[in-house]
Amino acid sequence: MSRELHLAGFLIASHVTHSHAAWRHPASETDYLSPDYYTRVARTLERGTFDFLFFADLLATPVRYGDDIAVPLRSGTQASATIDPSLVAATLASVTERIGLAITTSTTYFHPYEVARIFATLDHLSRGRAGWNVVTSLNQAEAQNFGQLDHLPHDQRYDRAHEFLELAYDLWGSWDRDALVQDKGTGVFADPSKVRTVDHDGRFYRSRGPLTVPHSPQSRPVIFQAGSSSTGRDFAARWADAIFEIDPTPEGRRAYYDDVKSRASNLGRNPDHLKIFPSFVPFVGETESIAREKQAFHNELADPISGLITLSVHTDHDFSQYDLDAPVTDVTVPGSQGLFDLARRLSDRDSLTLRDVGKLYAQGVLLPQFVGTASDIADLIEEGFHGGEADGYILSATQAPGTFDDFVDQVVPELRRRGLFRTEYTGTTLREHLGLPAASLTPTPRAVAAPA
Amino acid sequence: MSRELHLAGFLIASHVTHSHAAWRHPASETDYLSPDYYTRVARTLERGTFDFLFFADLLATPVRYGDDIAVPLRSGTQASATIDPSLVAATLASVTERIGLAITTSTTYFHPYEVARIFATLDHLSRGRAGWNVVTSLNQAEAQNFGQLDHLPHDQRYDRAHEFLELAYDLWGSWDRDALVQDKGTGVFADPSKVRTVDHDGRFYRSRGPLTVPHSPQSRPVIFQAGSSSTGRDFAARWADAIFEIDPTPEGRRAYYDDVKSRASNLGRNPDHLKIFPSFVPFVGETESIAREKQAFHNELADPISGLITLSVHTDHDFSQYDLDAPVTDVTVPGSQGLFDLARRLSDRDSLTLRDVGKLYAQGVLLPQFVGTASDIADLIEEGFHGGEADGYILSATQAPGTFDDFVDQVVPELRRRGLFRTEYTGTTLREHLGLPAASLTPTPRAVAAPA
Repeated sequence: MSRELHLAGFLIASHVTHSHAAWRHPASETDYLSPDYYTRVARTLERGTFDFLFFADLLATPVRYGDDIAVPLRSGTQASATIDPSLVAATLASVTERIGLAITTSTTYFHPYEVARIFATLDHLSRGRAGWNVVTSLNQAEAQNFGQLDHLPHDQRYDRAHEFLELAYDLWGSWDRDALVQDKGTGVFADPSKVRTVDHDGRFYRSRGPLTVPHSPQSRPVIFQAGSSSTGRDFAARWADAIFEIDPTPEGRRAYYDDVKSRASNLGRNPDHLKIFPSFVPFVGETESIAREKQAFHNELADPISGLITLSVHTDHDFSQYDLDAPVTDVTVPGSQGLFDLARRLSDRDSLTLRDVGKLYAQGVLLPQFVGTASDIADLIEEGFHGGEADGYILSATQAPGTFDDFVDQVVPELRRRGLFRTEYTGTTLREHLGLPAASLTPTPRAVAAPA
Repeated sequence: MSRELHLAGFLIASHVTHSHAAWRHPASETDYLSPDYYTRVARTLERGTFDFLFFADLLATPVRYGDDIAVPLRSGTQASATIDPSLVAATLASVTERIGLAITTSTTYFHPYEVARIFATLDHLSRGRAGWNVVTSLNQAEAQNFGQLDHLPHDQRYDRAHEFLELAYDLWGSWDRDALVQDKGTGVFADPSKVRTVDHDGRFYRSRGPLTVPHSPQSRPVIFQAGSSSTGRDFAARWADAIFEIDPTPEGRRAYYDDVKSRASNLGRNPDHLKIFPSFVPFVGETESIAREKQAFHNELADPISGLITLSVHTDHDFSQYDLDAPVTDVTVPGSQGLFDLARRLSDRDSLTLRDVGKLYAQGVLLPQFVGTASDIADLIEEGFHGGEADGYILSATQAPGTFDDFVDQVVPELRRRGLFRTEYTGTTLREHLGLPAASLTPTPRAVAAPA
């Protein structure tokens, strides 16, 4: 079969997504604390034969802007109110049949034994539909909630994350797939020769094992990552089955695609087994002009302060110290700041103020907006998919569940008509949806640093 | 209204319950890794208007007997294979409407911020049906899985648990119930004057807060405890809304009931707001003789080694060092060992060997077995309920879901006929089912030690 397009939906278990204005849309659900909202989104995406629903997460009220909880709470910025996505995914497991359920969990605040157990459980309860977006967390507010007063340096965080995954793989492999015997007559429950301790004694973690959870349908969750720094990309190239990416321009997306695929090749991996998902925000209209008006209506609702709060979190830099009307080119942020650099790149074109950047950020964290008729949007997807920027796309909503309904009812039929996208699920597990081979529990060896 | 009987079901997210033989029963479900099994049990109990379904948990393969994973795995002893009960409860939240969902989570291996977030989320997703069974964990195997090589001493574990709960209460109260404004027109999401940091800086924990989760329907989960030591009973008297108890004799249950209720009174609490649930294993038959045969059939399946493994875990003492045929009165276990003392008490009557104790333990961890027709079992419940031993009972299964079906179809109608048990739910939350007033987030003051 020819190369297959993949589609996914992006959510936070919260009132907003990338769009900080989503909650203000007149048609948006207001009861985002109930299971009904998530069920409705998941079933819509399943009707559209989407590969998976993806949940981001943040373990703190975002206070990096002025260190004041009042500002994010008043504006309802991203992550100002979130519930635990692992429980949301579990509650969706029993009301959906096929769609993958990918959730974000940090390697910084939990022990690998706990995280391995959660994902093995979710993989059983969903019958092979679990995905784990691995984040290493760079967030002072999260650290303060968990009583950790000092950050680990960036590289050491990744060293720890590598060891975290190595241990998790060992725990997932601590039961062979056929270890459960369950012979009621003889009373033999499991074959002990097919279960083992892991006896991990590493630099950051210790664990004896085995896991309490028998081997899960996918052997392990599908691993997602969203690395943008060079260290992050190397981590993704080693571990990820799929990457979630933010880049506002086609050139940027193509460069990222090439870079990460070659990092995977350099580690000896088949680059086709690392699926790259840029994200976008769709505005679908019966006519292009309706779509443009929908876009303008949404973008106008975005609050610049709300956006600058999230930018402060993402860059770990307090933007409340600057004049809102300062040209963004006058603002200097210490260190390499992937997303702020993107904002600057946009500014080369339009000479933006910090207020403009805040507004852009609030409109969707610099995600590109795909605007037009179903056919226009299918064109953009087709171009990107065949043009070397994507194996699939993650859609982020500006109203929920409405954005997903619009896309599934209008764009998906067009993609199917073009033979680009499946008309029904052919597999049952998330790995099968993604066209990935059976999972190995032997980690890819870590790259050795080249001699200088 | 007169005093109301409460009923609950006990499970481990696993192939066995207290009965280590449950998995060997011909009618027992073998796919305990799928959501269907749990859904079926929960819906059965909901049909029987039960107050809640309760999940125990253990974070390790039980290796305390000979320190060998092969023995528990072969025999399928309790907790030799378990999945994460918080995800099972979440998956049940969307396929049930009324039944409470209580899960066990340790205060030893997780940070209070995480646990507070999980239960606030579960309370939202279940619309006010969450319960938390607080355990402090005394288990070398768990500690080894989580890389903690040293135990805290018993009393210090409870000191830490007190602080854990105090912090969790503060986090649950960090959002007022009416803090969410969600005014789409003005863009005001929350009223910042109704959300606050907690700024906890204690002996064991630090956390800034607020919680990311808005105020939940019950304000906090219903708190369960199962303290048997004196320190444990004091902890329960301070914090618990309900207590899960194991005692094989009516005299023991009455003494426990009086003791814990007066400990709660001594702390200034209304003892009616602390509900005591002894547990039992039911064998229901159309005739008493059928019930007795069912009991004998089940008890014969119990493997003494399997039981001694669990006894070793519960007492933190390795029973593999003794001859199986040694009289139990010859075995000396260091320290105060609540459950082993119970086994000895039984032995006063019947002079048991260690093998006998292992078999008893495997039959149901010394839970009393209530055997007979629906009317006989209703008699036992009525006697206990009116005789000062219970506010309600937790049923533990010897085959699942069959034990629950039998009880709901045969015994519940009899209890309803007698006016002892509700015919339909009158409330929507677990607190309402239990007849508890709205939850306070101000902890009961801790008892001051009396001068010697």
